[in-house]
Amino acid sequence: MSKFILNINCPDQKGIIASVTNFIHLNAGNILYIDQYVDRENKLFFMRLECEFINGDFTENEFHTTFGETIVKKFNLTYELYNKDIRPVMALFVSKYDHCLYDILARYMSGELFVKIPFIISNHKDLESIAERFDIPFYHIPVTKENKAIAEVQQLKLLKDHGVETIVLARYMQIVTGKIIDEYRNKIINIHHSFLPAFPGAKPYHSAFDRGVKIIGATSHYVTEELDAGPIIEQNITQVTHLNSIQDFIAKGRDLERIVLSKAIQLHLARKVMVYQNKTVVFS
Amino acid sequence: MSKFILNINCPDQKGIIASVTNFIHLNAGNILYIDQYVDRENKLFFMRLECEFINGDFTENEFHTTFGETIVKKFNLTYELYNKDIRPVMALFVSKYDHCLYDILARYMSGELFVKIPFIISNHKDLESIAERFDIPFYHIPVTKENKAIAEVQQLKLLKDHGVETIVLARYMQIVTGKIIDEYRNKIINIHHSFLPAFPGAKPYHSAFDRGVKIIGATSHYVTEELDAGPIIEQNITQVTHLNSIQDFIAKGRDLERIVLSKAIQLHLARKVMVYQNKTVVFS
Amino acid sequence: MSKFILNINCPDQKGIIASVTNFIHLNAGNILYIDQYVDRENKLFFMRLECEFINGDFTENEFHTTFGETIVKKFNLTYELYNKDIRPVMALFVSKYDHCLYDILARYMSGELFVKIPFIISNHKDLESIAERFDIPFYHIPVTKENKAIAEVQQLKLLKDHGVETIVLARYMQIVTGKIIDEYRNKIINIHHSFLPAFPGAKPYHSAFDRGVKIIGATSHYVTEELDAGPIIEQNITQVTHLNSIQDFIAKGRDLERIVLSKAIQLHLARKVMVYQNKTVVFS
Amino acid sequence: MSKFILNINCPDQKGIIASVTNFIHLNAGNILYIDQYVDRENKLFFMRLECEFINGDFTENEFHTTFGETIVKKFNLTYELYNKDIRPVMALFVSKYDHCLYDILARYMSGELFVKIPFIISNHKDLESIAERFDIPFYHIPVTKENKAIAEVQQLKLLKDHGVETIVLARYMQIVTGKIIDEYRNKIINIHHSFLPAFPGAKPYHSAFDRGVKIIGATSHYVTEELDAGPIIEQNITQVTHLNSIQDFIAKGRDLERIVLSKAIQLHLARKVMVYQNKTVVFS
Repeated sequence: MSKFILNINCPDQKGIIASVTNFIHLNAGNILYIDQYVDRENKLFFMRLECEFINGDFTENEFHTTFGETIVKKFNLTYELYNKDIRPVMALFVSKYDHCLYDILARYMSGELFVKIPFIISNHKDLESIAERFDIPFYHIPVTKENKAIAEVQQLKLLKDHGVETIVLARYMQIVTGKIIDEYRNKIINIHHSFLPAFPGAKPYHSAFDRGVKIIGATSHYVTEELDAGPIIEQNITQVTHLNSIQDFIAKGRDLERIVLSKAIQLHLARKVMVYQNKTVVFS
Repeated sequence: MSKFILNINCPDQKGIIASVTNFIHLNAGNILYIDQYVDRENKLFFMRLECEFINGDFTENEFHTTFGETIVKKFNLTYELYNKDIRPVMALFVSKYDHCLYDILARYMSGELFVKIPFIISNHKDLESIAERFDIPFYHIPVTKENKAIAEVQQLKLLKDHGVETIVLARYMQIVTGKIIDEYRNKIINIHHSFLPAFPGAKPYHSAFDRGVKIIGATSHYVTEELDAGPIIEQNITQVTHLNSIQDFIAKGRDLERIVLSKAIQLHLARKVMVYQNKTVVFS
Repeated sequence: MSKFILNINCPDQKGIIASVTNFIHLNAGNILYIDQYVDRENKLFFMRLECEFINGDFTENEFHTTFGETIVKKFNLTYELYNKDIRPVMALFVSKYDHCLYDILARYMSGELFVKIPFIISNHKDLESIAERFDIPFYHIPVTKENKAIAEVQQLKLLKDHGVETIVLARYMQIVTGKIIDEYRNKIINIHHSFLPAFPGAKPYHSAFDRGVKIIGATSHYVTEELDAGPIIEQNITQVTHLNSIQDFIAKGRDLERIVLSKAIQLHLARKVMVYQNKTVVFS
Repeated sequence: MSKFILNINCPDQKGIIASVTNFIHLNAGNILYIDQYVDRENKLFFMRLECEFINGDFTENEFHTTFGETIVKKFNLTYELYNKDIRPVMALFVSKYDHCLYDILARYMSGELFVKIPFIISNHKDLESIAERFDIPFYHIPVTKENKAIAEVQQLKLLKDHGVETIVLARYMQIVTGKIIDEYRNKIINIHHSFLPAFPGAKPYHSAFDRGVKIIGATSHYVTEELDAGPIIEQNITQVTHLNSIQDFIAKGRDLERIVLSKAIQLHLARKVMVYQNKTVVFS
């Protein structure tokens, strides 16, 4: 009996929770988790629900049909239904830094991340040996000003051929191009090595060091057309002092980047993140 | 027998620590605390030392004379000597927010802050009753575009008449004018309700809310001519989620502001903060 | 039009959320906030709801009657209804430490704590001047082995005469007696200066120092018959190093105690805390 | 030209810093880092110094001879001299949990940990494939009540044959026997999955869950004869709520254990940890 995740959003109206929970019950469904959030100022309703359907005849198609004819119409509702048994397909983009890659692959190998990683793409060859160590196909796609369009075509082909649903930029140092962002709206997770919106762009540790901050951070966010400005999923910080050199900032930052990126990936794969107005609702 | 704090900085050279500690010992001094920091890149040396002189004849004047003729000349050294028995004189500037004021006054009354607070200056009358409750003189000095110069004259007169050494802006909402900054270089402590350099200026909680950050912060720094850009003394953060409204950000922020401002005041009064290149060395 | 908070708990069953929300709507009520938690292992359901009733005729008594005849019976439900306009009556017990007292009184005076504090009880006279400064009646009730029973009678009389609903032990150093715990089950909030269950009882900072921990904490909990073992409401920590003396632990601890105790008080007064199996459910 | 780390401790006396720094200078040494700590209550002095000797003739043997004849005798001083160019030899002991192992091996492969890991010992075969993936020899040494002595002999032989200096218990679930603790006093680093001294021993996450704490932690410490009671090197925490199941505690705890264990290893390998009175001095 499959478990499902149902994410819903719509204008806030009376009776949504009751209607949705009744629908589940009427179809011999069992609710395992339910949480909702109402943005009362903007009158928007968000809900995340986990359930299982005891009746084997009630398929996903039937869900879409019956749910669409009733609840969706009544409340002008948008939803996503996810089957928890199906491993999401997630590709990794890397450059030269290996710490985030190792962290993700370790969680993958140990079963902590319930995904399928079909390949790793990189604009450098440096990390190819790590991909080999973990038996994952590695594609070296160099990126220059001249070949940007071609590189994008190659990347998109790989993504499409493997049915990739989520892209993780694990300290990938190239800017992701518009076509890919379009195809993967709110599905490209990036890790930026600062506490956004402080120090966007290049060399944030150097800027943080020059500013003499006493705290550095890392931020995971969905990629949008504007650099380091997409909806934030997760952030964390660590303390620094005058004793810490830029090298220390970078070293401490590596641990932050690992933890924050993996946390964001887990939240995303668990379908706990919903985006609106360039911000995220993150369910517990 | 008085205890002293000696803060030193100079170009890094061989033998400074030995020379200074020998000087203390030769004058029947006892070292109670010693810490140093070397910025090897810029070849700068910083030291903080606490000591007591057993020989009652060795006065502060003698210290300045003998130390100046020997160690200072040899190492081209800058220093400050503080007598730990003397209460520093610290004035408070406030506007309408009372949380930082209450926090400072509570620590003052309980003896936690070893200072003398001769008066509170405010551009509004709102907090006068709090000053009365704590028996501290309150001066209402309104500030407008037109009277800025006159207000500054009044403020400076009060500061000079009372021998004020440190100024704390406890959510004081007016920009401090140039003459006061000049007179009190690295002696005006401000609390800014964001994690600088993110969200400088007005309404940082609103900006943080709109950006959808998952962490908000507060920063205490010395005031310079550039708004919210002075050397950072202390920072701290707290987590926020989509469930938190702007009002929640502000409420959570109040606790941060209390703690961060008081921490910065304590570090400053303990003479643990040394400034260079718009950054701070903060001794433990 | 009054706003109400409705806290509910019962065995988990289908249809509770729908029934309760329908009840609110049927009585011309508007739901402003709703959150629930299901302990699936123990099959227990908890809900917190804020609402307002537009129909002036629908009084609290009517709520109790109609709600009791229908929803309560159907689901075997326990509930509490709170009127948000009514200031809860909260008494403070203190001994000699003043930091938590000052913190609570500051929030009280600034309007941050929506309570009525009718008096402060203390087993010492030390803090009487603070009570006077804030114009709050102060009752000195000394406690010795011999007079424990009499002291309890005096305390209970004051509590009853003033209609006190919540008691806050703000570093009150006496053990609260059984009769008071009985009368105020889950309504006596204590602050313990350690990260429970580490270092219960006396002198936790000394014990933490001897153990060489790198983190110290403070814990706020409801008082039960067993010392420092009641349901935990809030905890927080700060880092320490070998450089910190016991005095430093105590100083750092004071800030933690302030923040943790006030946080617990706010959560309790906002009716966000529900207790079961010696643990708390804390709604956002 | 080799870089050295010199760790010193002795009874606190006048002139130690001057004597040691003069010794370095007299032998054409250059001080790159110096930090000291004085426990004034116990009158103990600790120093950590990094330096390089320009004169190629001044070997380690010469250092031991001249330093021993002068400074050591004069101050009754204990010291350790480490050559920064020599990779410390560090063995790993594991059982079935893989997260700490992966974390350490990733840092090893990327060059972040400057060590030589000659082998991994385990009482189970489960993690053998990970050792193979990273090309590190794996020795399966099962441990039962009956064979404890024999297992210890095998472990000690491997440790001695490979010149192991440091042992890391990366969620190794067997109690380390007395002979090994004796041979490796303050050189066996363990990770315990709680915030010691809370919840020592088995199943700390279960105990933490039952107690209803709002914070869980991990602690890294040197192993002594008493279980989970050795000197603490590093601790960290994360917040939990009623929404978190025991599985959530365990999952969150894994990240803590990774970070805390690796931090402790780095501090130990950098020779920044000095032990006395069952506590640690940890230099920055």
